[in-house]
Amino acid sequence: MAQVRPSAIGELLALGADPSIISFGGGYPDATLFPADQLAKVFDEIIRAPGGAAMQYAPSDGLPRLREQIAALMVADGMACTAGDVLVLQGSQQGLDFAARMLVDPGDVIVTEDPTFLGALIAFAPSQPAYAVVPVDAHGMRTDLLAGVLAANPKARMIYTVPDFQNPTGVTLSLARRKELIALANRHDLIVLEDTPYRHIRFSGQNLPTLKSLDTEGRVIHLGSFSKVLVPGLRIGWALAAPDLLARMGLLKVAADTQTSTLNMAAASLFLDRYDLWAHIARLRAAYAVKKEAMLDAIRRHLPQDIAATDPEGGLFTWLTFDEGFDATAFMRDVALPKARVAFVPGATFFPLTPRANFARLNFSAQPIEKIEAGIAALGRALHTRP
Amino acid sequence: MAQVRPSAIGELLALGADPSIISFGGGYPDATLFPADQLAKVFDEIIRAPGGAAMQYAPSDGLPRLREQIAALMVADGMACTAGDVLVLQGSQQGLDFAARMLVDPGDVIVTEDPTFLGALIAFAPSQPAYAVVPVDAHGMRTDLLAGVLAANPKARMIYTVPDFQNPTGVTLSLARRKELIALANRHDLIVLEDTPYRHIRFSGQNLPTLKSLDTEGRVIHLGSFSKVLVPGLRIGWALAAPDLLARMGLLKVAADTQTSTLNMAAASLFLDRYDLWAHIARLRAAYAVKKEAMLDAIRRHLPQDIAATDPEGGLFTWLTFDEGFDATAFMRDVALPKARVAFVPGATFFPLTPRANFARLNFSAQPIEKIEAGIAALGRALHTRP
Repeated sequence: MAQVRPSAIGELLALGADPSIISFGGGYPDATLFPADQLAKVFDEIIRAPGGAAMQYAPSDGLPRLREQIAALMVADGMACTAGDVLVLQGSQQGLDFAARMLVDPGDVIVTEDPTFLGALIAFAPSQPAYAVVPVDAHGMRTDLLAGVLAANPKARMIYTVPDFQNPTGVTLSLARRKELIALANRHDLIVLEDTPYRHIRFSGQNLPTLKSLDTEGRVIHLGSFSKVLVPGLRIGWALAAPDLLARMGLLKVAADTQTSTLNMAAASLFLDRYDLWAHIARLRAAYAVKKEAMLDAIRRHLPQDIAATDPEGGLFTWLTFDEGFDATAFMRDVALPKARVAFVPGATFFPLTPRANFARLNFSAQPIEKIEAGIAALGRALHTRP
Repeated sequence: MAQVRPSAIGELLALGADPSIISFGGGYPDATLFPADQLAKVFDEIIRAPGGAAMQYAPSDGLPRLREQIAALMVADGMACTAGDVLVLQGSQQGLDFAARMLVDPGDVIVTEDPTFLGALIAFAPSQPAYAVVPVDAHGMRTDLLAGVLAANPKARMIYTVPDFQNPTGVTLSLARRKELIALANRHDLIVLEDTPYRHIRFSGQNLPTLKSLDTEGRVIHLGSFSKVLVPGLRIGWALAAPDLLARMGLLKVAADTQTSTLNMAAASLFLDRYDLWAHIARLRAAYAVKKEAMLDAIRRHLPQDIAATDPEGGLFTWLTFDEGFDATAFMRDVALPKARVAFVPGATFFPLTPRANFARLNFSAQPIEKIEAGIAALGRALHTRP
């Protein structure tokens, strides 16, 4: 418990609720794109169905029909699997918790991108891991450096990665590096935890195979989620893993919370039966592409030219690199929040070992276009006038 | 992980799905009593509300309005608290998991009733506890024996109890014993984990104060749930605990699954605003009282006279005691399931240390009256003809 981190994400979610602040902080999808009418219809139908099954207890591994549907989505994405390979989770966050509880004893090493998803560090913390980190560039994790990191860390148990439109940097792991990562995991007998919440929100470039689809040794645990492609409020994610790993995660599921909400599983399942998820995702991709362009364009026009921003091919985030010596945490606390009335996530918190102060994560999915423009403009004014 | 138990509950839930078997096995509430029309209305309203907040992310501690409403329910039940004392959980099962993760290192001792709730043993297992057990009689845990158990177990960290209509026995802890349990916990500086899923389903006798309401030292973690009084499919439970304990559980909540489903929290909250939960509970109490009477009456008429059954003042279960030497697991496997086509839970699995074979747990809430009669009659025929 000593390692459980303060709720940085919780504090940021709270910030997002202050209407006088333009928040680029959270990882919220755009609520105006939620399929409210369709969801209202499926909830009404499942709740009023004779027998009340959607309100009753359900199998801890997930509703069988939903597991089939998720398996079909995974097959369409190049991963050979059946319903029996799928465990429904309380969001993919629960998969991060389970993987660490299953694989990591105190002092064991988790290898992550540097920087990496803060929520994963929070999920892993109760298992008291040590970390080894691998720098990230425009093509994702520097797998040329991964070999050395693994050689230096014999207690490494697991490589955690967000290969597509990474959180926080927005970069995507190249195909060559995906293959190299799998080869290294094979050589060092490691589990790979592949976290893909943003994978289907691609604006440009070519879809790349998942690590799971490149895995010939059953060592990739693939995590997926409906939070970004349907709605976060359902809290439905899933794991796809080899039978031995999935069985152990299934036991943890019974222990942790018995099951994911029957109502939400039944609603997601009926939604998939009645409506075209891929058509909905196509709308999201188009809308978020426009927002990404709006933010990158605003950054080019309003921010000082020495600030670099990643130009992601998908997902929810861009990553700003300020000059060395700039403290984004202090700037947020002293200037951006109180004066510019703009929130973002200072980058330091995403580095597992050595916080680096001159970075910031900006979300472009949650705010409307005009607030993206206004918020970046306000940030630009504040940055141009900084001492 | 080694201690994670096979999914006995999962297997029983699966049995309950075979329509040719009359199952007294699960702990299912009666689906015909679910407030489907009311729930359909509140889901429709929250999903269609402008802004989409019910589909978006929410604070990890729970929706503020729902925490207020739960606190009000707890105050009405004699526990002084405010919204800040409440953590919303993914069912009270998640509270069992969190308590063990927070308080129990491998080899630490959890003190339980003997027998105790199987789901709790499953939740505790990943924390690798040792157990010390206290026998149960018609007035609940034998607190006269608890002092000796605590003296003999200096590594005891927590007393786990279901004081009201215990699972599996149906018995209720008397007021004198509640006071004695709290006094002993104070003396030995132990946390008490009070699990109350059935508390408000009382048929007869007088409501007794919760352990939390008798706690003057902030050492009771009180767990509550909507699963039995509203619907299980919402997966909403909560913990009420002293600030330091609740804060640590709140950190585990962020790590474990970020938050409980926003949709379900918003639906429960609007249900509580719009409808009278206590009036709904009054209907449940009346209906379950009739079912309990039907089962006890059928047991008196159909089962051999040497089989004792508890007569619970509430809850979902009665507990059968067969003669020494009777193996309820073998009877279920060889006779009850294949021949009588009746399922129950053999008692052995509820004993943390030394399984005892001559017990069975029967649920009376899930089946309609005529199936209660038919199932007990079939069990009776099978028991009268046993070799």
